[in-house]
Amino acid sequence: MMGERSDARRIITGFSNPTVKALRALREKKHRKAAGKFLAEGLRLLTDARESGHIPETLVLSDKRDPHPLLSELERAVEASGGEIIETSPDILAKITGKDNPQAVAGVFAEFDTSLAALDRTSADIWLVAQALRDPGNLGTMLRTADAIGAGGVILIDDCADPFSVETVRASMGAIFTRRVARAEWADFEQWLRAGEGQLVAASLRDAQPYRSAPYAAPCFVMVGNESRGLPEEYELACDLRVTMPMKGRADSLNAAVAAAVLGYEVLAALDSGSA
Amino acid sequence: MMGERSDARRIITGFSNPTVKALRALREKKHRKAAGKFLAEGLRLLTDARESGHIPETLVLSDKRDPHPLLSELERAVEASGGEIIETSPDILAKITGKDNPQAVAGVFAEFDTSLAALDRTSADIWLVAQALRDPGNLGTMLRTADAIGAGGVILIDDCADPFSVETVRASMGAIFTRRVARAEWADFEQWLRAGEGQLVAASLRDAQPYRSAPYAAPCFVMVGNESRGLPEEYELACDLRVTMPMKGRADSLNAAVAAAVLGYEVLAALDSGSA
Repeated sequence: MMGERSDARRIITGFSNPTVKALRALREKKHRKAAGKFLAEGLRLLTDARESGHIPETLVLSDKRDPHPLLSELERAVEASGGEIIETSPDILAKITGKDNPQAVAGVFAEFDTSLAALDRTSADIWLVAQALRDPGNLGTMLRTADAIGAGGVILIDDCADPFSVETVRASMGAIFTRRVARAEWADFEQWLRAGEGQLVAASLRDAQPYRSAPYAAPCFVMVGNESRGLPEEYELACDLRVTMPMKGRADSLNAAVAAAVLGYEVLAALDSGSA
Repeated sequence: MMGERSDARRIITGFSNPTVKALRALREKKHRKAAGKFLAEGLRLLTDARESGHIPETLVLSDKRDPHPLLSELERAVEASGGEIIETSPDILAKITGKDNPQAVAGVFAEFDTSLAALDRTSADIWLVAQALRDPGNLGTMLRTADAIGAGGVILIDDCADPFSVETVRASMGAIFTRRVARAEWADFEQWLRAGEGQLVAASLRDAQPYRSAPYAAPCFVMVGNESRGLPEEYELACDLRVTMPMKGRADSLNAAVAAAVLGYEVLAALDSGSA
């Protein structure tokens, strides 16, 4: 059954090959949306994906790759699930991934279900919520932080960066595969949130209490706003808890991903000590 | 003295003007280094600079700018300090700053003294230290966090991103002007550190204690390592305190700027409660 490896493999040598063009197009949002697929690079990321139950539909390997047991496992998993394996040159891999020094392996995955209905809020004590977050690096960093604090995932409100962009996937360091992502308009999120348990918390200057001693409760939804404008007033007022972090200098705000992390770690510590 | 505004002003209309080329070149590190100058954009950033005592040598204004009292103050400050004011088109400003939608104003500043000798460690209770930090966005975010927690600034060890790059200055949200930046090799930093008071702290997995209850002491130097490799073992072992943050998921590290912020806010809270 595993003997006919060559059948599932294709070797691509030409830059103008239609498959190369289709893979490269996944770097653009409209093509990802049309195809329902996205790209992830690197053995570590793809191993995180595999171990979390996500097997790429297509695996693209550099023909200059070094052998590695995790790479062999990955190849076996793709073959076993009926996926395709493509071998190509480092130059073509660089063209596909847009990186000068590409990793030796990249994978194409089907985009996940990002509806709120697919979220089980009771599966985690903390959730991160991002409103109109525009920077893919910030979004990836929030996913990475969500993994670190054991949050269930990141809920994207209004017009956010695409969680399946190459930059977000890269900055998530694999967390795109281990955390849930949901996308919703504010009204739909609010309705979903209030239909069950959940405390909505945001950093705010409006009628807020110190973040170090606030009464956090699980499941706690920690919300941060757009990089330039912050949260709309209406969203802040809808929160169950508004907290404030010290701002000792001239600035009145933190980077959005930093704010989510400082607040997220605080909630984690508060919930852990409460349950101890 | 203030009457002859037109004398200090130049109007530039051509893309190939040598001044435009020289300004645009400041986006590259080698040209910044040769000129000892760097670029910052935006009225808010330049106002932070002015209010912190940094007046641009050259101010570049869009000829399509809207009037603003802070802009007038800026112009007056540049004229009073003998600087030059250039008016040009939004297209040329976009070319200089490398942004599609440029801000209406940019300034050229002399690079600061970044020697350790110029730092007064007793001027703040917290300092951030970055080792081989490669991402300009991370460095800018660390500066922004340093401002928020009232840290004295960021000390750059070994080969770090350039603090005067357009990306770092932008991500710092003005903190490049309000915080100190120093650059040093590890051996020189260690010697400087041990010649005075100071507790060196790093997040580590080696023989570390929980970050929430660690005995932080001012002046506290919070160190984070390179984005991919973390800190060298030797540097971790040289720390007075190694602390560990919860990692509940698959990943074993945080984004470097996030780690610095979570730890920095913890140190701030510990020092504040200790002195209360």
